[in-house]
Amino acid sequence: MSKHLHLNAFLMSVGHHEAAWRLPESDPHAHTDIDYYVKLAQTAERGKLDSIFFADSPVLMGDPGRRPSGKLEPTVILTAVAVQTSRIGLIATASTSYNDPYNLARRFASVDWVSNGRAGWNIVTTAGADAARNFGLDDTPDHRVRYEKAAEFVDVATKLWDSWDDDAIVADKELGIHADAAKVRKILHRGEHFRVDGPLNLPRSPQGYPLLVQAGSSEDGKEFAARYAEAVFTAQQTLEDAKDFYTDLKARTIAAGRDPESIKILPGIVPIIGDTEEHARELDAELARLISPEYARKQLAERFKLPIDELDLDSELPADLPTEDDIEGAKSRFTLIVNLARRERLTLRELIARLGGGRGHRTFAGTAVQVADAIEDWFRQGAADGFNIMPAVLPSGLDRFVDEVVPILQERGLFRTEYTETTLRGHYGLARPANQFDEADALVAAR
Amino acid sequence: MSKHLHLNAFLMSVGHHEAAWRLPESDPHAHTDIDYYVKLAQTAERGKLDSIFFADSPVLMGDPGRRPSGKLEPTVILTAVAVQTSRIGLIATASTSYNDPYNLARRFASVDWVSNGRAGWNIVTTAGADAARNFGLDDTPDHRVRYEKAAEFVDVATKLWDSWDDDAIVADKELGIHADAAKVRKILHRGEHFRVDGPLNLPRSPQGYPLLVQAGSSEDGKEFAARYAEAVFTAQQTLEDAKDFYTDLKARTIAAGRDPESIKILPGIVPIIGDTEEHARELDAELARLISPEYARKQLAERFKLPIDELDLDSELPADLPTEDDIEGAKSRFTLIVNLARRERLTLRELIARLGGGRGHRTFAGTAVQVADAIEDWFRQGAADGFNIMPAVLPSGLDRFVDEVVPILQERGLFRTEYTETTLRGHYGLARPANQFDEADALVAAR
Ligand SMILES: Cc1cc2nc3c(=O)[nH]c(=O)nc-3n(C[C@H](O)[C@H](O)[C@H](O)COP(=O)(O)O)c2cc1C
Ligand SMILES: Cc1cc2nc3c(=O)[nH]c(=O)nc-3n(C[C@H](O)[C@H](O)[C@H](O)COP(=O)(O)O)c2cc1C
Repeated sequence: MSKHLHLNAFLMSVGHHEAAWRLPESDPHAHTDIDYYVKLAQTAERGKLDSIFFADSPVLMGDPGRRPSGKLEPTVILTAVAVQTSRIGLIATASTSYNDPYNLARRFASVDWVSNGRAGWNIVTTAGADAARNFGLDDTPDHRVRYEKAAEFVDVATKLWDSWDDDAIVADKELGIHADAAKVRKILHRGEHFRVDGPLNLPRSPQGYPLLVQAGSSEDGKEFAARYAEAVFTAQQTLEDAKDFYTDLKARTIAAGRDPESIKILPGIVPIIGDTEEHARELDAELARLISPEYARKQLAERFKLPIDELDLDSELPADLPTEDDIEGAKSRFTLIVNLARRERLTLRELIARLGGGRGHRTFAGTAVQVADAIEDWFRQGAADGFNIMPAVLPSGLDRFVDEVVPILQERGLFRTEYTETTLRGHYGLARPANQFDEADALVAAR
Repeated sequence: MSKHLHLNAFLMSVGHHEAAWRLPESDPHAHTDIDYYVKLAQTAERGKLDSIFFADSPVLMGDPGRRPSGKLEPTVILTAVAVQTSRIGLIATASTSYNDPYNLARRFASVDWVSNGRAGWNIVTTAGADAARNFGLDDTPDHRVRYEKAAEFVDVATKLWDSWDDDAIVADKELGIHADAAKVRKILHRGEHFRVDGPLNLPRSPQGYPLLVQAGSSEDGKEFAARYAEAVFTAQQTLEDAKDFYTDLKARTIAAGRDPESIKILPGIVPIIGDTEEHARELDAELARLISPEYARKQLAERFKLPIDELDLDSELPADLPTEDDIEGAKSRFTLIVNLARRERLTLRELIARLGGGRGHRTFAGTAVQVADAIEDWFRQGAADGFNIMPAVLPSGLDRFVDEVVPILQERGLFRTEYTETTLRGHYGLARPANQFDEADALVAAR
């Protein structure tokens, strides 16, 4: 455990709470307003956070009536943010199931150039038949196949990012030689899912390549993370579960031949901050009252593979539910939700209220000091290298976190008071990756 | 012919001339420097130009020794430019052969949102086996098939862009209804090349959708343009060819059931501006001297499908060359180059010098007044609705054009002195497209 914890701001239009848009303060058009996102990013930078992050899926999620739906493509948002900030790291989600490695590798390398080394890629395999049907498929590929393809995708991408040596450009005007062609190479990848010749049409970027982030917590997901991820987002409801996950993933990372410090584990927390604990609880309750439960009921029925009329709002979940093995979508989230409902004996209506804030992430309502305590506790107990901060309401929830919680963490010596690095990897205390094809680099890496 | 002509700045790192990077003034790292591109865009905006444009291909083009190669992905560049300019139109190239319609439609809609209605898409089919080999193919699909796929791609994209009515968002906080679900629809496209369900995960953008631009001049290319394009880039060496092309394409547009004013034809011009005509010619000659002809010789041999030793630098082209029918790559450019060489009886070395500036586009060396005359002449003679300005050397060539040529065109009443519109379509005098699925819109369009 390093001395400092890491903080990522997970940004979602007017906040993570599904009813946040109904509050008087919320702008229901924020989700298509780039200035709005730039201001959020500038707030996060003011708080010296490590990074901001946008989730994504190439499909319209849920009913467009329920909440602001549809959003700007995240690498577009991050590019606009990049040129209007100077330090904050910039992480965008993109799917390995519905992109071509060549195009995506180039796009992230471009964002890394534009941001001067602040790009990160949250690698997802994209669950759900609806997304598949936007790409010529009838249904989502099997979970295992999606992760196999994801692994090959990342292999192709890193080869493309390494297809130029860092010192390939010689720019010799006298001789008329711009780049040393021997330092720019085809990758000639021939795999199960992809055939890609390369080289990439972009020189190696400031970070070498974007920070690799991952967020799957199933068996396949954890194996993938152990092999590739440098930062991991995860939803954990209890300290015990979070510690188990942390210990397990660090062990898997060692087993994969990597330094456990080279992977940073960031559970999510949905802070609802009030001047008093009571005030915070009132805000939480007000948000819960604004949820229209029918939308969520329909979605849970789909998740549990049940006819909707078998889910009664005022009863506990039926005894007979599928198991994680039956799920081809988001496996670990399924289990988390079932466990939460059973453990706390929640009615469907109560479960919906609990999921309304963070869709399964831990919601924590309290004062700034209590939020800081909750963060410090998990950090010191070995459940986290840092946190994925998911404000229930934006922009106010991020403002309060930055203005009230961050100073407490700084006073306690848990969080940086100034940026000491310029790149996203730098903020997370990670090294710039060596170039797998560059002999000089390889020598350094071997030492 | 409208009273005003239109001007697009075609930007390419340190300029269109392949040897531009060897000049003392050129920054050989400009191609990965976003601030450099933002400054160019701001210069174009200072000149009240209609738009800037970036070419693109998902492949490393040519030998990386020859000139700065590899570039930032154009929608990334344009996003960074969008938030640092307010009026200039922003056109990026993207391939219909190597993208998914869902992802690309969303990305361009995002840029249209971020720029407040200034996005344009140069639709290309991407010639060349090298590009194909970055996407799992052995060779480029046939020219005809590429254009068929392009047509279906654009059909899918426009359906996705129209999948939200303009007034779909009701944002009723009281009732808890964000969008009227009846105004957000699946497109359920089932075609030869694509199956896409939709809807797009982004509300309809300020322009409805990006300006559709096209740049193929073959038979297939012209048919495609007549059906879809709102602006057309074209390489024309002589006034006669340009007039023929203009007349032909306007006639085809009418035959496709469209208003000929709804398509703007913009031939390219590579202006080399000097204080005197002699000074301009000297600059042109200096650039020609800096070309390393072996790179171009190799590339021409590939274009002509000849062994390289059949191309002698100091002889005219061999008599026995393939015809346009034999070419599956860029058909019209092949013909233009052969015709140019034969008409002017150029040796290979001379041809290479002529192509060094604009790869087949018309190069014009002269004073600012002569450049303005050249532009006015073609415009008045019915060869152009405007021009694609391709500075040989950047940034100086664009500075000179904006500071010296634009004021002359303005004085002559040929070019705007202030922006009167805020969107890219507005600048080109084109209407915002109706939504094909919106009944109210359809009624307006039918009138
Ligand atoms: C904080 C967090 C953010 C996530 N963001 C995305 C996302 O943007 N897009 C996506 O498809 N999945 C996202 N996921 C889901 C995971 O990538 C993964 O698909 C899901 O947890 C199921 O993975 P599993 O089946 O390996 O458990 C996210 C998960 C977490 C914990
Ligand atoms: C000004 C101009 C810009 C072009 N930009 C691109 C480009 O960025 N990418 C590309 O693949 N082709 C580009 N092209 C080529 C055309 O899209 C087209 O592929 C080429 O002219 C051959 O088309 P044809 O076979 O229909 O003649 C451009 C052409 C012109 C005239």
